Amino acid sequence: MSFSPLIRQLIESLRILPGVGQKTAQRMALQLLERDRNGAQRLAQALSQAMEGVGYCKSCRSLSESELCQICEDPRRDDSLLCVVEGPMDVYAVEHTGFRGRYFVLKGHLSPLDGLGPEAIGIPELLARIEAGQFSEVILATNPTVEGEATAHYIAQLLAGKGMVASRIAHGMPLGGELELVDGGTLAHALAGRRPINL
Amino acid sequence: MSFSPLIRQLIESLRILPGVGQKTAQRMALQLLERDRNGAQRLAQALSQAMEGVGYCKSCRSLSESELCQICEDPRRDDSLLCVVEGPMDVYAVEHTGFRGRYFVLKGHLSPLDGLGPEAIGIPELLARIEAGQFSEVILATNPTVEGEATAHYIAQLLAGKGMVASRIAHGMPLGGELELVDGGTLAHALAGRRPINL
Repeated sequence: MSFSPLIRQLIESLRILPGVGQKTAQRMALQLLERDRNGAQRLAQALSQAMEGVGYCKSCRSLSESELCQICEDPRRDDSLLCVVEGPMDVYAVEHTGFRGRYFVLKGHLSPLDGLGPEAIGIPELLARIEAGQFSEVILATNPTVEGEATAHYIAQLLAGKGMVASRIAHGMPLGGELELVDGGTLAHALAGRRPINL
Repeated sequence: MSFSPLIRQLIESLRILPGVGQKTAQRMALQLLERDRNGAQRLAQALSQAMEGVGYCKSCRSLSESELCQICEDPRRDDSLLCVVEGPMDVYAVEHTGFRGRYFVLKGHLSPLDGLGPEAIGIPELLARIEAGQFSEVILATNPTVEGEATAHYIAQLLAGKGMVASRIAHGMPLGGELELVDGGTLAHALAGRRPINL
């Protein structure tokens, strides 16, 4: 016996969710049908409303329901700091640190092999945003991966040509990490970036 | 910065999925918004269609889009065997073993503490189904948990009163398991249920 057409279609559709494979999708589909049909209907509505109603902030390009996002609209933020990240999720992560400057969200990182050059990830828009603002420092908070590093390096070079200060987030040991478990590259960065202890 | 209302609503709705907590729901919501809005719209539609279109087979009470499910409609199945399971997912599991009898799907197991008695899980309907058929054996394939065992035991007692043969699926070592890793209860069942080796 195979699943009936509507159940099969639901299982297939659930597989677009990150981390959901065939087995998990089956379990989700049957559990929704068995236990929470109202919840599933609400989920259907929430999905549809969010996909239609959520767009991008025209200033920082983060996800936003209005033309400007909450952060760009907030007059109390520090207009001298711009934090550049790879995606909207990163904005929420940096916000949790207490950072109160402005943001710019790239569309991922440079990846020439996938055909993603500066235009594809929004570097021209970033430069326009920087021209339009009065930033004293641009913090490059792309991910500490090969592609993220390359993207940060590329932007730093462009900004150096314009006499703008660009900084990169620090690399080193994560808090609570153990030296014997961390990879060599991270430890090398932690050593190279050592700082005097202020007593 | 908090998520905008539509994103918040989407995250809350995603949390009804089994195994999805706050962090996973956030990741799912943002990934759908960033990378696959069409897929998300299709998911919304599939959810809505399945919740409206999938009902229960009136004979075995499994999930079905028509009045009778594929299995109940199939004239080639063995009408002398009835397999009783706790939920629709179990039907698919038993089908994979090559079982070709009929099914009856309970609504879970007896759980007096949660107020789930015989009526709540569909025992009267099971008895009516057995009366209406010509089964020579009823296989009780509820889960090997305390509640599943109690449910099987309860049904077996009812059937004994009607002179019907009820059997219980075997308990023992799972294939590929290791004696030193399996729990004591399972091993005790495996020993007690030992069978002669036919050479």
